[in-house]
Amino acid sequence: MASTPDLEIDPWQVREPAVSAESLPVTESLLSLSNGYLGIRGTLDEVEPHGARGTFLAGVHETHPLSYPEEGYGHPEEGQAMIAVADATPLRLVVDGTPLDIRTIEPESHHRTLDLRTGILERVLVWRTLAGARLELRSQRLVSLRERSLAAIRYRVRVLDGAAHVVVRSQLVLGASPPEVDSDDPRVADVLDHPFEQLALSHGDDGGALSAVTRRTGMTVAAAVRHVVDGADDIDTHAAADDHVVTTITAALTAGHALEIIKTFGHVWSTSTTAASELEAARAVVDSGVDRGWDGLVAAQREELDGLWAVADVEVEGDDELQQALRFSIFTLLTGTACTEGAPVGAKGLTGLGYSGHTFWDIEGFVIPTLSLLVPDAASRLLAWRASTLDAARERARVLGLQGASFAWRTIDGRETSAYWPASTAAMHVNADVSRAFWLHGHVTGTGPVPLGGLAVLVETARLWLSLGHHDLDGVWHLFGMTGPDEYTGVVDDNLFTNLMARRNLVRAAEVCEQLSQEAAELGVTPEETQRWRAAATAVHVPWDERRQVHAANTGFTSYQEWDFEENGHYPVQEHHHYSTIYRHQILKQADTELALWWCREDFTDEQIARDVDYYEARTVRDSSLSAGAQAVACAKAQHPDLAYRYLRECALVDLRDLQGDTEEGLHLASVGGTWLALTAGLGGLREDHEDLELAPLLPSQLTRMCYRVTWRGRLLQVETTRAGTTVTMLRGEHPVGVVIDGEPMEVAPGAPASAPLREPTPLLPEPNQPTGRAPRA
Amino acid sequence: MASTPDLEIDPWQVREPAVSAESLPVTESLLSLSNGYLGIRGTLDEVEPHGARGTFLAGVHETHPLSYPEEGYGHPEEGQAMIAVADATPLRLVVDGTPLDIRTIEPESHHRTLDLRTGILERVLVWRTLAGARLELRSQRLVSLRERSLAAIRYRVRVLDGAAHVVVRSQLVLGASPPEVDSDDPRVADVLDHPFEQLALSHGDDGGALSAVTRRTGMTVAAAVRHVVDGADDIDTHAAADDHVVTTITAALTAGHALEIIKTFGHVWSTSTTAASELEAARAVVDSGVDRGWDGLVAAQREELDGLWAVADVEVEGDDELQQALRFSIFTLLTGTACTEGAPVGAKGLTGLGYSGHTFWDIEGFVIPTLSLLVPDAASRLLAWRASTLDAARERARVLGLQGASFAWRTIDGRETSAYWPASTAAMHVNADVSRAFWLHGHVTGTGPVPLGGLAVLVETARLWLSLGHHDLDGVWHLFGMTGPDEYTGVVDDNLFTNLMARRNLVRAAEVCEQLSQEAAELGVTPEETQRWRAAATAVHVPWDERRQVHAANTGFTSYQEWDFEENGHYPVQEHHHYSTIYRHQILKQADTELALWWCREDFTDEQIARDVDYYEARTVRDSSLSAGAQAVACAKAQHPDLAYRYLRECALVDLRDLQGDTEEGLHLASVGGTWLALTAGLGGLREDHEDLELAPLLPSQLTRMCYRVTWRGRLLQVETTRAGTTVTMLRGEHPVGVVIDGEPMEVAPGAPASAPLREPTPLLPEPNQPTGRAPRA
Repeated sequence: MASTPDLEIDPWQVREPAVSAESLPVTESLLSLSNGYLGIRGTLDEVEPHGARGTFLAGVHETHPLSYPEEGYGHPEEGQAMIAVADATPLRLVVDGTPLDIRTIEPESHHRTLDLRTGILERVLVWRTLAGARLELRSQRLVSLRERSLAAIRYRVRVLDGAAHVVVRSQLVLGASPPEVDSDDPRVADVLDHPFEQLALSHGDDGGALSAVTRRTGMTVAAAVRHVVDGADDIDTHAAADDHVVTTITAALTAGHALEIIKTFGHVWSTSTTAASELEAARAVVDSGVDRGWDGLVAAQREELDGLWAVADVEVEGDDELQQALRFSIFTLLTGTACTEGAPVGAKGLTGLGYSGHTFWDIEGFVIPTLSLLVPDAASRLLAWRASTLDAARERARVLGLQGASFAWRTIDGRETSAYWPASTAAMHVNADVSRAFWLHGHVTGTGPVPLGGLAVLVETARLWLSLGHHDLDGVWHLFGMTGPDEYTGVVDDNLFTNLMARRNLVRAAEVCEQLSQEAAELGVTPEETQRWRAAATAVHVPWDERRQVHAANTGFTSYQEWDFEENGHYPVQEHHHYSTIYRHQILKQADTELALWWCREDFTDEQIARDVDYYEARTVRDSSLSAGAQAVACAKAQHPDLAYRYLRECALVDLRDLQGDTEEGLHLASVGGTWLALTAGLGGLREDHEDLELAPLLPSQLTRMCYRVTWRGRLLQVETTRAGTTVTMLRGEHPVGVVIDGEPMEVAPGAPASAPLREPTPLLPEPNQPTGRAPRA
Repeated sequence: MASTPDLEIDPWQVREPAVSAESLPVTESLLSLSNGYLGIRGTLDEVEPHGARGTFLAGVHETHPLSYPEEGYGHPEEGQAMIAVADATPLRLVVDGTPLDIRTIEPESHHRTLDLRTGILERVLVWRTLAGARLELRSQRLVSLRERSLAAIRYRVRVLDGAAHVVVRSQLVLGASPPEVDSDDPRVADVLDHPFEQLALSHGDDGGALSAVTRRTGMTVAAAVRHVVDGADDIDTHAAADDHVVTTITAALTAGHALEIIKTFGHVWSTSTTAASELEAARAVVDSGVDRGWDGLVAAQREELDGLWAVADVEVEGDDELQQALRFSIFTLLTGTACTEGAPVGAKGLTGLGYSGHTFWDIEGFVIPTLSLLVPDAASRLLAWRASTLDAARERARVLGLQGASFAWRTIDGRETSAYWPASTAAMHVNADVSRAFWLHGHVTGTGPVPLGGLAVLVETARLWLSLGHHDLDGVWHLFGMTGPDEYTGVVDDNLFTNLMARRNLVRAAEVCEQLSQEAAELGVTPEETQRWRAAATAVHVPWDERRQVHAANTGFTSYQEWDFEENGHYPVQEHHHYSTIYRHQILKQADTELALWWCREDFTDEQIARDVDYYEARTVRDSSLSAGAQAVACAKAQHPDLAYRYLRECALVDLRDLQGDTEEGLHLASVGGTWLALTAGLGGLREDHEDLELAPLLPSQLTRMCYRVTWRGRLLQVETTRAGTTVTMLRGEHPVGVVIDGEPMEVAPGAPASAPLREPTPLLPEPNQPTGRAPRA
């Protein structure tokens, strides 16, 4: 495992003051740059040493065979894996015949800084060569937030003392980063080690271009690069191999003189355009970048980020580490989705190959609802991608013998690719999570679900639920054989979360169809059908343990054997125990009933919330990064703001402190969304699912102030909470809008904030305990 | 799929009057010969055409990688597959330059006959060659029941008209029959297509020998062959390749003259002997066979079978087809286990590669209990093999975090090799089934479980159950997350069958440990431990549906959605529907609660039996060959002898009529055991689990008489039932023994039979219905 980097705490920067080779796998993820279309890991310019190189384009993937030791009907037969495209970052430096390698030199100083306001990753390295010269390398890298295909590096080598002969070999190279898939089937490596067939390669004096196509998915990728050089004696470009463009820049420098290279590059992909056109498109991207120039690119980047921070900044006082982590989360979220279109956002975004680049329900659960409140356009694009998979979801439902549509548990192209059905095909809640994201977006923006294909999503998921469930002899409606969000319980009857989410799915579908009766009729929806949806929703079974006075996560859950956390407290539990053992114990991997307390809040009284949180907190081991945010919200709702705050910290710091030990595989997008929600829906008590925006702020003892922004029905609101109270200010917008603070309806208008005093928490029970070793970290 | 052969009905023969090339895959299984150590499929002498060639030695297997598309803790990493050893059967005939091939000649007659009394497979083919000669080929094949490694073929070619030049190429060839494993992982084929490394090959004038070793399991196999020829002009043996001995026999024959070849061959294997010694052993086997001579081999075979039929024959009057099928089943069972030692009996015995040669709980459930009542020595040897896997079972329990021992769901070497845990690792009932077989054997023979390692099995399985289950707040003891015998319901709470079987396992273990306190103490058993076993057994939960007045197959089962058999009546259901769909419906693949009615009979009243049978019959689709026998017994117990009779027929005819369509993969050993049990425990009402042997005979309307034999506490008893009544006669034995007929205790002594009149069935409910298309077949 890679070592955890030492990073400085700063409100607007992530700074590694002394670059560590051992921490590179982690810092490559943390210092990756992405615009949601193009992502580049934070590798060193000179390539070596590295953890995992990688330049990614959202949607570009290859398929591979899935081999089952025991076959079964309906198991997906193809896996999907995000694959790295050409790497345009390498700038290999040779000074007086010795390659720069931080493992062999002892730098006088070497730091890297990701600036969250400029969007630029800067590196400065000062060292003395064997021959005695002292040099400074300063490189700056950006992935444009204005032009999705464009990235650039400014690379400057300056001699501080003495003289040096400098050679830079700048590469554009395909196939340098084979993907990692957790399979020992040799056919998988056969496919993924060489996913591309080379199509064309060209080069001129100052750069070149290449194109290739994936062998199975038929995706054409193209990349181009050009160098603008100052201070060089010579520049020459050639093809080093048929997948490899090399530009060699040489300079003989004396003290005070510098070689500066602006390396501008572009990446494009398509499944419908010819390779020749893609190549031209890549070249045009580079033309545009060169035309803007480095300073132009920097200025545009700052403008874009200023715009994002204006609608999304968050401030806290009393915890500088948290302040930094919150801004880093928001930066990751907003840049990582800024230009995504026609492709999903994977669980790691474009920051690493973890989970093979697949998207999961966490994106609809935690990322899109956050975007709907911060940058609704980005949310729209992600929802539009999910809506575009409706036909694949319909086909999956058909294979499963069900009506409507069943969305994929994990996928890149929309088709199901999960190979362990108890944790995927049985986890039908993904459909309710998807439909919730559509519904919430329409509700938050005021646009309604129709423009994004949301009506069809709501209708087809409602049909799915109706065909999945059934009424028993007493007329109670059940969903059997489901797996809820918690993956340590599988294929159970009446998972509480799934039942309550299905209820909402059915009711919201009925309501929307009644509002939009003509559009609904085009989908074949009749009043009789919506009536059946409502009848099922009304009759849904809610598992309740009368003796313990808590909800049961599923029928029978509270009678399962208790887990001995003292004896068996090795985490993650799934790596030390067999599923057959885990499934029959009262142990949860992630928030399940606690998530229902939040997303299905109408179904719980305050006393139930207090008791359920108390019960499930003691049994949830949080072996998943997506849990802390939900637990923060549930604990805040149970009036434990200090505990919610600790969960918020864990969620926010999961990558900066590598709390899961796997940040090297990429950043945790669900935590990124969960962090903002832990703050706003958790401590802030923000709820966006009723008619007016609701707030119920609590301040943990460690914070003296928190302030965030949301876009609600087209208005930009700022919510600031101090010990004195909460003030909601309209920063943009022309018309008043209602908000509810601590249950009190108020109005916010331009220049007329709404205010309410800070309420003290009113817990019904003491702060709950967590399993041994599983109190919130960080 | 291979076509179903047309076979004649005969009480003592299985006869194919006109050999069909299309039916060969099926007849190769039906006409296979086995002694439980060595098995040979009923291929044609000339090899072509064939379905699947195969000579098998019990226990000889190779391992292969198991690749999971999603890894999980505790999943077995190695598969196991039975592999064919050298094929010594080929006798390729060339007449006047033309190879004999039944696809190109039109035989005047061509029949094959397996005689159940002689144990010899005979084939007679008469045809006219292109050159005009008319010939008769008569071949006879046997696998010795006296010498486990020995087999022989008498092969005679006679010219009826004209003259012919005859060449026979007789082979001993390794690697002709690669195994089939249901995996598309290319590494599996890499391993299994060439499992052997050749070690040695030698040849003399009249035969040769070879040895080889499996690459991964290190099993040394050796085979030798010798030819005794009459009427030949020339005989010559050479090595055709390094894995291939060929003996060429030539003759110029005129009308009335014949060439006769006695081909004697032997197969041995070992993991502990040198290859050279194995080679010598194989040669010695052949020496012995040649020394006995063909007539000696035939006489010994007859003697052995006479001995088996004397203790195991079954007669029915009124159904000739059933009579034949019953004898065929008993022949398959007794010959297929006669010489098995130190190896398991696979689900297909040594008759085909189905299920990779793995053994399952069906062997302990249906085969061993039958053998305990027919040929107890054979049962002992099979139990001794299972006891020898105790350490592997202890290791598996440890991996699963459990106490005691957890026996493999499917295996050849004792280690778990199932790759789909919901149907295997969760099916903990296998442990109760194994311990039941040990306990029953000791009870039936009167020897007690200790000599076979049964005490340790009972103790370690009791410990397993205690660590699996737990007491709830009311003190009720539960087993959660179990899969019962029915594989269309998985990972459920309190499977009725499992709970009741665990109860017996615990109680029997406690009883035996109390009887054998010293031996138990050596296993660390204390009175406190047996007390805990008894406490759990007493408190075990019995799922009961109060409203429907039936037992629930598991908690909640009777509230699952009903399956629409009209709409979804495509069988087998698992090939048309996803497990996630099947699991949440009231549909059963095989008897589950119905099996509990039999094996756990003390827990059910007659009314419960009637209602449970009525309920579960309507929901059991019997997509498994092991179900019909159990359903026959349950339906007989519910006083439906005509329905039980129809299930008996289906069970008995499963292979002769290829009812499952997969007889080509080998015979169904569970059906073979189930057939005898369907007759005796079903129609005969035989129970062997209380102090005295119990009988409760019913005669279906189609039968006028049934008569079978059992060995009970060392006495050979004959049980004959006619319309007049039932008579139990002691055929062997010196001392009287108690039997119970229809609840009446009686005594049977030498020369003093016990009799009782035939009782009319007393059904409490009408004969139950089965799902659409799933009434008993045949």
